Order: sequence, then structure tokens, then C-alpha cells
Amino acid sequence: MNRKRFVDSYLKKVFRVIKNYRLVEKKDKIFVAVSGGKDSTAALFSLKKFIEETTIDCELKVFHINFDLPVWKDVEKVIKKQAELAKVETVVIHLKDFGISLEEIAKKVRRPICSCCGVIKRYLMNKIPREMGATKIATGHNMDDFIVFFFKNLLSQKFEWIAKFKPLLPSTHPKMLCKIRPLFEVSRDENEKFCKILKIPFVREDVCPYSYIKYGLDKNREKWYQTIDGIEKWNRNFKISMIRAIEKMSNYFRQPPEEIKTCLKCGEPSSQEVCGFCKILMESKEKI
Amino acid sequence: MNRKRFVDSYLKKVFRVIKNYRLVEKKDKIFVAVSGGKDSTAALFSLKKFIEETTIDCELKVFHINFDLPVWKDVEKVIKKQAELAKVETVVIHLKDFGISLEEIAKKVRRPICSCCGVIKRYLMNKIPREMGATKIATGHNMDDFIVFFFKNLLSQKFEWIAKFKPLLPSTHPKMLCKIRPLFEVSRDENEKFCKILKIPFVREDVCPYSYIKYGLDKNREKWYQTIDGIEKWNRNFKISMIRAIEKMSNYFRQPPEEIKTCLKCGEPSSQEVCGFCKILMESKEKI
Repeated sequence: MNRKRFVDSYLKKVFRVIKNYRLVEKKDKIFVAVSGGKDSTAALFSLKKFIEETTIDCELKVFHINFDLPVWKDVEKVIKKQAELAKVETVVIHLKDFGISLEEIAKKVRRPICSCCGVIKRYLMNKIPREMGATKIATGHNMDDFIVFFFKNLLSQKFEWIAKFKPLLPSTHPKMLCKIRPLFEVSRDENEKFCKILKIPFVREDVCPYSYIKYGLDKNREKWYQTIDGIEKWNRNFKISMIRAIEKMSNYFRQPPEEIKTCLKCGEPSSQEVCGFCKILMESKEKI
Repeated sequence: MNRKRFVDSYLKKVFRVIKNYRLVEKKDKIFVAVSGGKDSTAALFSLKKFIEETTIDCELKVFHINFDLPVWKDVEKVIKKQAELAKVETVVIHLKDFGISLEEIAKKVRRPICSCCGVIKRYLMNKIPREMGATKIATGHNMDDFIVFFFKNLLSQKFEWIAKFKPLLPSTHPKMLCKIRPLFEVSRDENEKFCKILKIPFVREDVCPYSYIKYGLDKNREKWYQTIDGIEKWNRNFKISMIRAIEKMSNYFRQPPEEIKTCLKCGEPSSQEVCGFCKILMESKEKI
């Protein structure tokens, strides 16, 4: 497939998801959570192209969390370059401005650093954009990610998680943003190819010194990605059939809407009395 | 693992399923549907051993459908030998006694022969044992079969089929036998090894001239078996976790009990006015 045809076909797939699931609506203010990697970069540029083509009245912003690890200066540079190319405003927050050092916290609370990072990221990705008037937060999760998550959650019988494998997760609390995943039906390889053809700079997945690839936190994860790529080779359309089946299946696992509490410490939405973010901060202070 | 330890561990797995799901109960009269292959052979002998060890008051019978294809004389011999070894009575029925020639029917109704065979087999496997006083029918479906069926049904979004992936399917109609699958948590390789160690004769899977292996009806099927074997290599316990997850998941897909009709032609249970078996017979006669 030549380059132009690839980009057209790629965007067709992404736009179909955006339209079918109404990911972008009039008056939306969408913050795209970007890491600098190929996936979130592809999410940003395809959302931008969708808005340009449809001329829908919708505002887009790049949202990035700088982890203040040595390499992050370069990551921020790449992201600013991307935002410039996309002609989109950038909001960058620094963990240190919240008094947070990821490495110190992880040491003190004795949890894997990636687990702490996840809690902190999910918290700030909801709170900051919402405070800045966002209506939705977009992420770069791709088809492969969801298929691999599906296997992991299926095997551990966490069916309630599979309920969330959808291109749009509506808000379940006044302070909880709606989440959108425009890349639900494209693969990680397609995202990379899209960025490369359009000559958009992006950072390597393993730029984070704690990347699971380097750190070996989850060796099986990469094996799962290889396995689904392997199946696709002899079973064309496996991935697209799989992601669509997962989306349909997820309806069966919908839970009765659980009561989302408000964290006693910070007032953010939480499934427990005190939210995961505040717990981590408290624990890390207790152990000083 | 030495031979004795393998057999002990194999039987432990099968007995656990038999006990947990109450596959064998007092006063049961269980017909084991055997093809002569390793799986149904293993089902017969492990059920026999369970009954011997627990001394439960339960009758076992071997049930076999002879397809009257040239090779079937040898198949029947092997089955009679197995039944002799297991000291279990044998019920063999011949398709020709029902005025059926599988090859002719398949030609006339223009359906794949394996599809006709499936309809006929399922019909007779329920009707004949029931008329002879059976309370349950046992089959040799193994863990691998269910995992592969799961993928096929997941990809084609036939979730209602996944609802049936359980070690015990209760009767849903007065004329429908309860089905049991004692090998739900053992693999096809384990079944073969079990038969070989116990020196029980069995026939090769592809003894049928229409076997999918020879006939290439479903090339992907064998690929799926290889894929799950491949995953098991780097992800120990994948299959057992998977089959247990499927069993749990199947509960989510349970349909409200559909009204099972009674076939207008033969009076057997059917989902439609006329059952699949009668339809095939009618179609084949119309086209003479």
C-alpha cells in the first residue's frame, strides 16, 4: 500500500470509531493525554484531522505529565514540537510542582514504581484537565493493548474490567471526565507507520527508565503482543474481529452502577473513603 | 513424571471435575458416546475408574454410532475391545439401520458432510440412549476443544454458545438428556498419554475419511490448537486458567430458558417446528 493510501485507510478506521461511538461532539474541549510515544501521538493527530475535516466546533489540547526523570526534558521537547505541528495548545504539568518524586514515593510505599505512576497519572489526568474546563480526555490505547488486557483480565477472571473495554467510557461522577479511545480499532504498528509517514516526531516506548521492556516487570506482556501478531498472520482480520467481539462482550459484564465516593482528603472521585493518590502520598510521608 | 504418577495426577484432575460439578450421581445410567478416539476412550475409562473407586451405584454403557463407511468395521472392533477391557456393555447402532447413508445424504442436501454428520450424531446420541433408560450422556470433549471453540465463538460473537461451555449441561426438555464432559480440565495430549500408559487400544483421530484433518474443511482449527499449545509453553497454567475463566464467564451469557419445541415429524426436542435431523432426511428424499 502506498503512503497516501495507508494514511487514508488508517484515518478511515479511526474516523469510523469516532463517528460510531460519538467520541467527538459539538462544544467539546478534549485534552489528549500524550506521553510522546507513537500511540498518543497518533491519537492527537487523527483527532486533529477529524476536527479539520468535519469542521466540528471542538477544542483540542495536548496534556502531558512531566515525570521529572532525567530523560524527560527531551520528551517534553518532542511533545512541544508535536503540538506546534498540530497547532494545538499544550498543557504540561510537572510532578515536582505537586511535591511528588516518583522514585522516592515508590521506594517508601514499597510498591512497584509503575503501579505508583499509574495511580498518579490517572488521578492527575482527570483532575487537571477537568479543572481547566475539559469535557473529555483522549488516550492512545490501541487495539493490541485492549486485546492483550482482555487476555490478562480473562485469565484472572476480572470480568468487571473487561466491561471498560470500549471506545467511550462515560463519566460516572460529576468530577470524573468522560474518556475516549479513538485508536480502538487500529494496531500499534499502524500507529507507528502513521506517525512515520506524516513525519511526526515521537519518542520510543522505552524512553522511560522504568519501562516494562527494560525493567522486565511483566515479561509476559510482550509475549502476548507477539502472540496476537502471530495469530493475525494466519488468521487475517483476527484482531479487528477480536476487538469488536470484546466490545460487544463487554456489555455482558456491566456492573450495576457502583456508588462513586468522594475522597475525604482531596474531594476527588474515588471508589474508597480515601483515593489511591492520597493514600500513596500519605504512606510516603508516614515513612519518612 | 513416571507413568503411575501421571495416571494418578490425571485421574485426580478428572475426578475433581466429576465431584465439583456432580457429573455422576447415585442411580445414574450413563451412556458414554465413544468414537474410538483417544478422548472418548479416556472419558470411558476415567468414568469407569471413578465408579470403581467411589463404589457409587451408577451404571455405565458404551454407546457408538457406526457410520457404515468402509473403515468402520475396524473402528467397531476397537470399541468392542475397549468395552471388554472396561467390563462395560456396548450399544452400537448402525446408520444404515435407520435407512441413512451419510454420503448420499450429504450429496443430496448439498451441505458439508461433517455438518450432516453432526446433526445426525447429536440427534441419535440423545434419542437412543434416552429410549434405553439413560439419565446422562458423557462425551470426550477436552479442555483444548473448549478453548478453541471459545475463540471461534468469541470471534463470531456467538456468546450464547459460550454459555454451554460447562462440564454439565442440564436437561432443558423432558426428552433431552443431561450432558456431561468429565474431561473439561484435561488436554488432548493428556488423554492420549493416559490411554497409551494404560495400554488401551484407540483409533486415530483421522480414521474418518472425512476427518477435517484430511478434508481440510477447517484449516484454522489445527492452527488454533497449535496456538494454545504455544501459549502454554511460555505461560504455564494458561490452559487451565483459561478453561476455568471460560466456565465462569459462561454464566454471563446464559439466556432466559428458550422454549424447546417438539419436532412435528418425530416428536424429539427441537428449537424449530421440524428438527434438523428430520429436515435433512426430508431434503434428501425430496431430491431423489
